[in-house]
Amino acid sequence: MSETASELRKLTLDDLHAAAERLKNWGKWGPDDEVGTLNYTTAEDIVAAARLVRKGKVMSLALAFDEKGPQGAKSDYGAIGRFNPIHVMLRAGTDAYSGVLDHRKIRGADDIIIMPTQCGTQWDGLGHIFYGDRMWNGRDCRTVTSFGAQKCGIEKTRERMVGRGVLLDIAKMLGINWLPDGFGVTNELLDQAEKHFGVSVGRGDFLLVRTGQMEAKLAAKTWDGYSGGNAPGLAFETLDWLHAKEVAAIATDTWGVEVRPNQTTDAAQPWHWIAIPIIGLSVGEIFYLGELSTDCASDKRYEFMFVAPALPITGAVGSPVNPLAIK
Amino acid sequence: MSETASELRKLTLDDLHAAAERLKNWGKWGPDDEVGTLNYTTAEDIVAAARLVRKGKVMSLALAFDEKGPQGAKSDYGAIGRFNPIHVMLRAGTDAYSGVLDHRKIRGADDIIIMPTQCGTQWDGLGHIFYGDRMWNGRDCRTVTSFGAQKCGIEKTRERMVGRGVLLDIAKMLGINWLPDGFGVTNELLDQAEKHFGVSVGRGDFLLVRTGQMEAKLAAKTWDGYSGGNAPGLAFETLDWLHAKEVAAIATDTWGVEVRPNQTTDAAQPWHWIAIPIIGLSVGEIFYLGELSTDCASDKRYEFMFVAPALPITGAVGSPVNPLAIK
Amino acid sequence: MSETASELRKLTLDDLHAAAERLKNWGKWGPDDEVGTLNYTTAEDIVAAARLVRKGKVMSLALAFDEKGPQGAKSDYGAIGRFNPIHVMLRAGTDAYSGVLDHRKIRGADDIIIMPTQCGTQWDGLGHIFYGDRMWNGRDCRTVTSFGAQKCGIEKTRERMVGRGVLLDIAKMLGINWLPDGFGVTNELLDQAEKHFGVSVGRGDFLLVRTGQMEAKLAAKTWDGYSGGNAPGLAFETLDWLHAKEVAAIATDTWGVEVRPNQTTDAAQPWHWIAIPIIGLSVGEIFYLGELSTDCASDKRYEFMFVAPALPITGAVGSPVNPLAIK
Amino acid sequence: MSETASELRKLTLDDLHAAAERLKNWGKWGPDDEVGTLNYTTAEDIVAAARLVRKGKVMSLALAFDEKGPQGAKSDYGAIGRFNPIHVMLRAGTDAYSGVLDHRKIRGADDIIIMPTQCGTQWDGLGHIFYGDRMWNGRDCRTVTSFGAQKCGIEKTRERMVGRGVLLDIAKMLGINWLPDGFGVTNELLDQAEKHFGVSVGRGDFLLVRTGQMEAKLAAKTWDGYSGGNAPGLAFETLDWLHAKEVAAIATDTWGVEVRPNQTTDAAQPWHWIAIPIIGLSVGEIFYLGELSTDCASDKRYEFMFVAPALPITGAVGSPVNPLAIK
Repeated sequence: MSETASELRKLTLDDLHAAAERLKNWGKWGPDDEVGTLNYTTAEDIVAAARLVRKGKVMSLALAFDEKGPQGAKSDYGAIGRFNPIHVMLRAGTDAYSGVLDHRKIRGADDIIIMPTQCGTQWDGLGHIFYGDRMWNGRDCRTVTSFGAQKCGIEKTRERMVGRGVLLDIAKMLGINWLPDGFGVTNELLDQAEKHFGVSVGRGDFLLVRTGQMEAKLAAKTWDGYSGGNAPGLAFETLDWLHAKEVAAIATDTWGVEVRPNQTTDAAQPWHWIAIPIIGLSVGEIFYLGELSTDCASDKRYEFMFVAPALPITGAVGSPVNPLAIK
Repeated sequence: MSETASELRKLTLDDLHAAAERLKNWGKWGPDDEVGTLNYTTAEDIVAAARLVRKGKVMSLALAFDEKGPQGAKSDYGAIGRFNPIHVMLRAGTDAYSGVLDHRKIRGADDIIIMPTQCGTQWDGLGHIFYGDRMWNGRDCRTVTSFGAQKCGIEKTRERMVGRGVLLDIAKMLGINWLPDGFGVTNELLDQAEKHFGVSVGRGDFLLVRTGQMEAKLAAKTWDGYSGGNAPGLAFETLDWLHAKEVAAIATDTWGVEVRPNQTTDAAQPWHWIAIPIIGLSVGEIFYLGELSTDCASDKRYEFMFVAPALPITGAVGSPVNPLAIK
Repeated sequence: MSETASELRKLTLDDLHAAAERLKNWGKWGPDDEVGTLNYTTAEDIVAAARLVRKGKVMSLALAFDEKGPQGAKSDYGAIGRFNPIHVMLRAGTDAYSGVLDHRKIRGADDIIIMPTQCGTQWDGLGHIFYGDRMWNGRDCRTVTSFGAQKCGIEKTRERMVGRGVLLDIAKMLGINWLPDGFGVTNELLDQAEKHFGVSVGRGDFLLVRTGQMEAKLAAKTWDGYSGGNAPGLAFETLDWLHAKEVAAIATDTWGVEVRPNQTTDAAQPWHWIAIPIIGLSVGEIFYLGELSTDCASDKRYEFMFVAPALPITGAVGSPVNPLAIK
Repeated sequence: MSETASELRKLTLDDLHAAAERLKNWGKWGPDDEVGTLNYTTAEDIVAAARLVRKGKVMSLALAFDEKGPQGAKSDYGAIGRFNPIHVMLRAGTDAYSGVLDHRKIRGADDIIIMPTQCGTQWDGLGHIFYGDRMWNGRDCRTVTSFGAQKCGIEKTRERMVGRGVLLDIAKMLGINWLPDGFGVTNELLDQAEKHFGVSVGRGDFLLVRTGQMEAKLAAKTWDGYSGGNAPGLAFETLDWLHAKEVAAIATDTWGVEVRPNQTTDAAQPWHWIAIPIIGLSVGEIFYLGELSTDCASDKRYEFMFVAPALPITGAVGSPVNPLAIK
């Protein structure tokens, strides 16, 4: 039914190149497009998604952004400069109490945040991954310079991250708290989950796939091994499934969506090579799906309104986000 | 009908203290409450708000977060340490092109953001303003230290910023592009706007008041005078109106919601003294309401689903936000 | 001869208060003074220090400022927000190679640094520690607000950190690579070291005391336990010794100069309580003394010209520094 | 005698290429060298420099690092991401006063600094400028990636920035407060200045050239036009002079050392194209030379000990610095 990493088909670079040719969406929404599969979601889809709000319950799918986040834990993955959010006050209530603000005639507090866009619950924008010298829609990868993404910045998605959300709770389906590291979620499993939960993934949907790994880490009270470590996740073949389903975006409760160890040692995160630059798929990572899992199990409804607006940071290749599932 | 700043009633500190006594919501939702008037919004309200989504249109109410934001322009207001967002790449497509990432077997870009939580479109959290030595719900202002807000951090609102949005477009009602600086939006004007636009503001609503000032600045292509300068905005008396209406939150297209020059020189931002620590009102600032204004004028519907999730930054007294109006 | 922490005299708060009365230098250089014992160093001392330069050898006493620094390692000490330097490029050679800078007609790289002033080799400024509600020279501690040190900022030392340096290499004297954690360097040991190394510490000197702990950590290839952990260091009584000697400043190769566990549990870092706000002593920490130790052992000269200019960051309570010993 | 920009010889790219061939120091100190002309300074030079300390006077050549620095002022130069230092407290005396630190049993303040390495008084490292695809010593410019300078990082200079300083005060020599914008300091003028001030620039010296422009800006109380604007500065031909003199480093009181408008529109900062990557010259900018100018005029000694240690920030292409002239 499912496969562990050791049983998943081993990939070669030829497999990646073939997938790139097979799944390439470049030009599908015109040469100027900067948002890719987010185009799949129509106004009608949004109206329909809003109709799914029946009990008025809002669930945040975000981890708190703070020094307890998943960065900085032990990892075999080479450092790429990410760190947990650094939150610093510009003024505080202690200044107020001390009277040093009173010449301003108002007592207030202010603060700043210093954070990688991908330090916690986050969207990968379409400028995040390149395929050779190309990025989404066939653009030259030099479109993303030290001055930011001149095209496909996350700010282009500012009015896009709204639609029907669907949860496929693989761990729940299999009756376990969390999938083991290296467990590959295959197309067969995704099909099975649709049937199991009575929900059909379709064009323009925001698909959430739960592995339970985040609950494993929260239970262990350590993020060691989460960022860049072994993990359950999507098998490479799911690219075809997602492409055929025409989902708007996908998100999981893991660091990097795809199964780790990867199905090849010739490429790191081979699923990413295709998903972002070739398919034009927006990818959500480090989503907290625990509360949503419990709620869906309780009311048996695995679809909901999904609203997850990125911060429109000009030229950013990702964004921290507080995604909401509204039922 | 309305009044310019020079005609608005001058306030004394006694007026502020009287308002504080009159409008104090401390304890209303129990001694442990940390979200104030956001409690007004019920599950039923959220369901009803979702029913307002009829054409599937999503409008972002956020300015882009970048170096062109409103900080750093000329202002007579003393510096309080805010600056425009600083966006820096950790890796870029130019690194990819240069081949220096290839030993990682994946070509990607990453970035970080350094930003005051209140540098652009933003929520003021309940830890942002103090009344004497007190903050929302009567807590000691020393609850907000250099280590952040130990209570009432913005992260407590993570599942709260959803409900019915109502736009009162004062500039539009008066047939002008923007209200002049010093123009006070009074209770009478708010009442008039409800009638004019055929919408009634009520308990649990997210009220957006448009002055047009942002369009004035965008037209002038300079933010000079926006942050901390003179501005149209809410008169002090609107605190009573908002308290009586039991709105969940309020936001405007100005830097600081209230009319400037303020109605007193004994206090800076006197409306804030009461709104946040006394009423427990979440306040949105620097909201971009131009597109929404046009849309509402076009379809004559001044209510919509409003979803504006703060980033759950632990202990923060505000948050940048990409607020969405969904119709 | 020397004592481990368990043998050192236990302190009470009364001991601290008595020391504060006994050693208080407030007013010694006038009510407006902001640099304390740095005043001890005279122009003549600087001329004499320069005469110590005989072989033209420059030794840096700084650790590199990077992600491998001592912050972030395991520590029982509560987090105080320090982190290793974050170095990010604004432009890089890879941008140059990619041709994306050529419209500027110059190919260059730029960068930024984000760092706590006390994340690595650093000066503690006189605004760093308070004694009750007082800071150096008797000022109200509210002189240091969220807007920085209004007095005694590190920028006041910009022309002061030059003079005769003296190394007392306690580990070397005792014939061991490094002193054990909890080892207290007593006045008796300091006296002995002067004799042993044939050097006399005097008014206006910059005294460096080597424990070897940094070499222990470098040998172990981990900083675990360095920041805020147990350590060899100065016994509380050395405050009297330093006060009597009238040194300009002192620095060691440990995180916090003084012996840990501290000689009391009623105060944390009791030596700091007195040294900085009461004596007005500038304190250097995390100085790399390994190369200097070897050099002094080789040429038998434990005195040298010492130049360690703080960055004049306005209002800062510390500064990263690249201290130089020049022989 | 001297020339304004309009009179200076116009350059072509061929002139630059010819200069590159003529002045190239690649390989001079071996293929692994990372510090270039800093190699010129010998141990004997350092001993001799120390002998210049005769009155024990220390002068800082640094501007304060704060929000009043030269970044952010008006400039026609395209933004390159530099900003004034952002100094933020991690704990303050107001926290101490408020009692919120007392559970730690010590009352202290801490802070962080966020700054471009080139926002104020600074060293340009040898990774700062590229010549085509090459950097200092012939290395590939891709040596400087988003992860920093893998070679020639500023940390390599940590024990190098010590030697004889020489001031050539061109404005003073010409009897004016400051040279006008566009004024080119030619080789003839440098020769004349040596005679005028009775000092001879030689191998291994740290040469400071004063234009007075900083005093012009300080007098005007605005930095408008300083960063990237027109300025007096070194003519292109001085590259030959500096190369022949074998100076260790050069610094001026302007933003960019060389005369602006530049002597060509085919290249921006043509002097930099050659000085840093071809000659291997460390370049100091935004040095405050006003106090030093006055002092040298007073004692007629235009040479001094110069100590200007960069912060050893691993992989940085520049460093803020507090340079000291010691006489």
